[in-house]
Amino acid sequence: MNHSSKEFSLPKRSENYAEWYQKIIVVSDLAEHSSVRGCMVIKPWGYALWEKIVGELDRRLKETGHQNAYFPLFIPLSYLEREATHIEGFAKECAVVTHHRLIPGEGGGLVPDGPLEEPLIVRPTSEMIIGESFSKWISSYRDLPLLINQWANVVRWEMRPRLFLRTTEFLWQEGHTAHAHREEAVEETLTILELYRDFMENFLAIPVIQGEKSESERFPGAENTYTLEAMMQDGKALQTCTSHFLGQNFSKAAGITFCDHRGETQFAWTTSWGTTTRLIGTLIMVHSDDVGLVLPPKIAAIHVVIIPFTFREDEREPILSYCHALCQKLKGVTYEGSPLLVHLDLGKGNPSEKGWSWVKKGVPIRIEVGLREVQNQQLTVKKRHQHPKERELQGEESLIHTLPQQLEEIQNALFHRAHSFLQQRTVSLETVSEFYQFFKGKGGGFVSIYWANDQTIEEQLRKELNISIRCVLPKGEEGICPFTQKPTTHRVIFAKSY
Amino acid sequence: MNHSSKEFSLPKRSENYAEWYQKIIVVSDLAEHSSVRGCMVIKPWGYALWEKIVGELDRRLKETGHQNAYFPLFIPLSYLEREATHIEGFAKECAVVTHHRLIPGEGGGLVPDGPLEEPLIVRPTSEMIIGESFSKWISSYRDLPLLINQWANVVRWEMRPRLFLRTTEFLWQEGHTAHAHREEAVEETLTILELYRDFMENFLAIPVIQGEKSESERFPGAENTYTLEAMMQDGKALQTCTSHFLGQNFSKAAGITFCDHRGETQFAWTTSWGTTTRLIGTLIMVHSDDVGLVLPPKIAAIHVVIIPFTFREDEREPILSYCHALCQKLKGVTYEGSPLLVHLDLGKGNPSEKGWSWVKKGVPIRIEVGLREVQNQQLTVKKRHQHPKERELQGEESLIHTLPQQLEEIQNALFHRAHSFLQQRTVSLETVSEFYQFFKGKGGGFVSIYWANDQTIEEQLRKELNISIRCVLPKGEEGICPFTQKPTTHRVIFAKSY
Repeated sequence: MNHSSKEFSLPKRSENYAEWYQKIIVVSDLAEHSSVRGCMVIKPWGYALWEKIVGELDRRLKETGHQNAYFPLFIPLSYLEREATHIEGFAKECAVVTHHRLIPGEGGGLVPDGPLEEPLIVRPTSEMIIGESFSKWISSYRDLPLLINQWANVVRWEMRPRLFLRTTEFLWQEGHTAHAHREEAVEETLTILELYRDFMENFLAIPVIQGEKSESERFPGAENTYTLEAMMQDGKALQTCTSHFLGQNFSKAAGITFCDHRGETQFAWTTSWGTTTRLIGTLIMVHSDDVGLVLPPKIAAIHVVIIPFTFREDEREPILSYCHALCQKLKGVTYEGSPLLVHLDLGKGNPSEKGWSWVKKGVPIRIEVGLREVQNQQLTVKKRHQHPKERELQGEESLIHTLPQQLEEIQNALFHRAHSFLQQRTVSLETVSEFYQFFKGKGGGFVSIYWANDQTIEEQLRKELNISIRCVLPKGEEGICPFTQKPTTHRVIFAKSY
Repeated sequence: MNHSSKEFSLPKRSENYAEWYQKIIVVSDLAEHSSVRGCMVIKPWGYALWEKIVGELDRRLKETGHQNAYFPLFIPLSYLEREATHIEGFAKECAVVTHHRLIPGEGGGLVPDGPLEEPLIVRPTSEMIIGESFSKWISSYRDLPLLINQWANVVRWEMRPRLFLRTTEFLWQEGHTAHAHREEAVEETLTILELYRDFMENFLAIPVIQGEKSESERFPGAENTYTLEAMMQDGKALQTCTSHFLGQNFSKAAGITFCDHRGETQFAWTTSWGTTTRLIGTLIMVHSDDVGLVLPPKIAAIHVVIIPFTFREDEREPILSYCHALCQKLKGVTYEGSPLLVHLDLGKGNPSEKGWSWVKKGVPIRIEVGLREVQNQQLTVKKRHQHPKERELQGEESLIHTLPQQLEEIQNALFHRAHSFLQQRTVSLETVSEFYQFFKGKGGGFVSIYWANDQTIEEQLRKELNISIRCVLPKGEEGICPFTQKPTTHRVIFAKSY
């Protein structure tokens, strides 16, 4: 019985999903709660995932003409108040800076001093502070469209923090754009939604359902909020990326005007959109298993780990020199346009235990090299997304040639597994009784149902079943909303959510 | 007379250096003051410089075994108080969060509510919050060395902000490492100093003088602070990168202990080191001229801009199609391991004025293409670091082949120009009267002089001449300090500074 592996063993997903999620972050060494209430420490293995997300999304945003810039962390309270719905949405979770220095207090310690004339809010989002700059940068239709993105930290005070999912401080990307015409701004909102969808599905291997948020779930101050909803392995929904059409609400609040072709002054049409370190929580919950983290190859900071299996002293030299040579050869392989990320584990300790730690960390491919492998030039290859006992023997030459393809197959297998799960757990229902039966059952999942937009019933369902409308699906054939008996052309997705 | 270029013309560096600095940031569109006191907005052209700095430094830090992670923005006041010298150094410039929500006030607006039991400080630096994590992560000598880096925003309240040089919020990189032995930590401190020096000189083309800070300029809580000092074109010094050996001060304050080979508990030896968006201010002040920004090629977000010179309608098609083809060919050129960054300026407006705007933005090479150039396959090439009237005619084929080399030459020319300036303006003096004469004169520059460490005289010189010890040079031959008549083996650099 191995003490250390027992100590860190995970609860089964089917038995305690919430605890499984908490523990998997510990065993894979991604992050931890800090002693600062609600804030997390993102550890190197977790931060590496964020760096991959940033690198890929940043490239895609630049390719579509967006430029990065950086705006202040602090927003004067009066700015936030300029858009009434906006401030209402964030007032309950604002960190407020009221002083700008510390002086010795009477009791001996330091106390805040230098009271500010106006409190500063640590940005919960940057529409108002970026709007202030836009109002200066834009004067003519020739300055439009203005397509800006920012990578930053934001703060929304959180009473019940969960690592990656809900933390007081989190990292994100926020896009802010201004346009001369309504249609252009709407198009930008949807272009970004599609950019996010492609990124979610083809980079993170996470299938999503896209649609519009109902009024009650809309971004404070937006005209329309579009969302991508993913399904976790407990059947709950998680909102991953959102894209907001802001109409002229924020341009009126921040005074973003331009002179049009005819010389007339107009308010600009704006959008904003973002995604956060929450994606890492999503990634964990969609792909991982009862053993540990499972990473799709495209986001893994290590694609292949080589583990030397040496037990006797006289085996060390031939095995290690073979491993070093193999490592060099693999580093010459190109995957997704860059060199393959290969790690040779030279750490001390039992080889099986070392292998086990890479399993928990989710590395897609492990290559085990013992004396037999060296002599036969046949490598033992284990793939993280398969059953832990599965192994393949692959000749060195053939392995090197087919690694990019094998990684691609793993990436696709993970997407398809998640996609099947999403499809199996998404049902179309037509009656209220079926609806109640579904959500009172244990399974969990998404329900697609006709809906004639009734906020009172929406609120009632939230209270009774702890569910919400995750998104309104695009217009389809007409049907009858079973809750109101009214005709409607829209189905919505209902689910429990994170 | 061109109205728009007159409007943005710069004062001469020789006449008003301070105003020249302010205005050059406007004409090159790098950044602007925000209406949030002391905070700046980094505009896309300025942020692109920061992205280049981040990309290159991050690569170098990873190559030397450092891993990125992310720690909370907020630090409880009690943590900062654990190291007395440390908190003393930062108390006067701390942004203090005292509340976590807003509620409607009596006057109608919103007021802070939810008072925190303990105030939170927006990080001015992260030794104490990262120390808290290190104390949990480290238990055995096997966990050492621990080499962590963080890219983050920090806040130090600033009453007299100057863009990039002194702002309340700035962006930086902060490294934090822990080691089992004193010598290893000292070695890390100096390894990083050398990494920074190479980066400054070979990437930013900024020559630096390296040495140790005097006690009065040391990082609060450090045993030794090493610095790289650069010389601006007004002869003043600017501290660019610092690397601190923290001894066991912070490990004692944060409880970072480990179990050594013999099973005994020891305090770790720690270091910290950082560099900031100040580097952009340095870059501006070292290389730019009376016309505008000058960028060394390695940091430029655009290496080559192609400007079509079309005046008549019938010229447009042949010139533009030539330009598009040229642009494609140039994008195939490799410079510093990546594709050359080429921009084809298709904007409307007068070609000369467009060219002028790229001059101000500092793009290293401009290629002007008119009908004559197309017909002769001879391109007009202008280099930013040369006199604005200089131009070269280069055949297309030859240009494409030699561009990487030409960029390298520009990079070297900029370094050597700055290096000559630094050498010419650095003088070794031996007497107090020479010393006073130098700093009462108008020229400005660095003085190297023997110094027997006297804080009273140091403070007196600061008051009388507005100068400080920028760094203590490494131990050399013995000499006599002219201020105290005491023998010493150290010279120091005195200068006015930013």
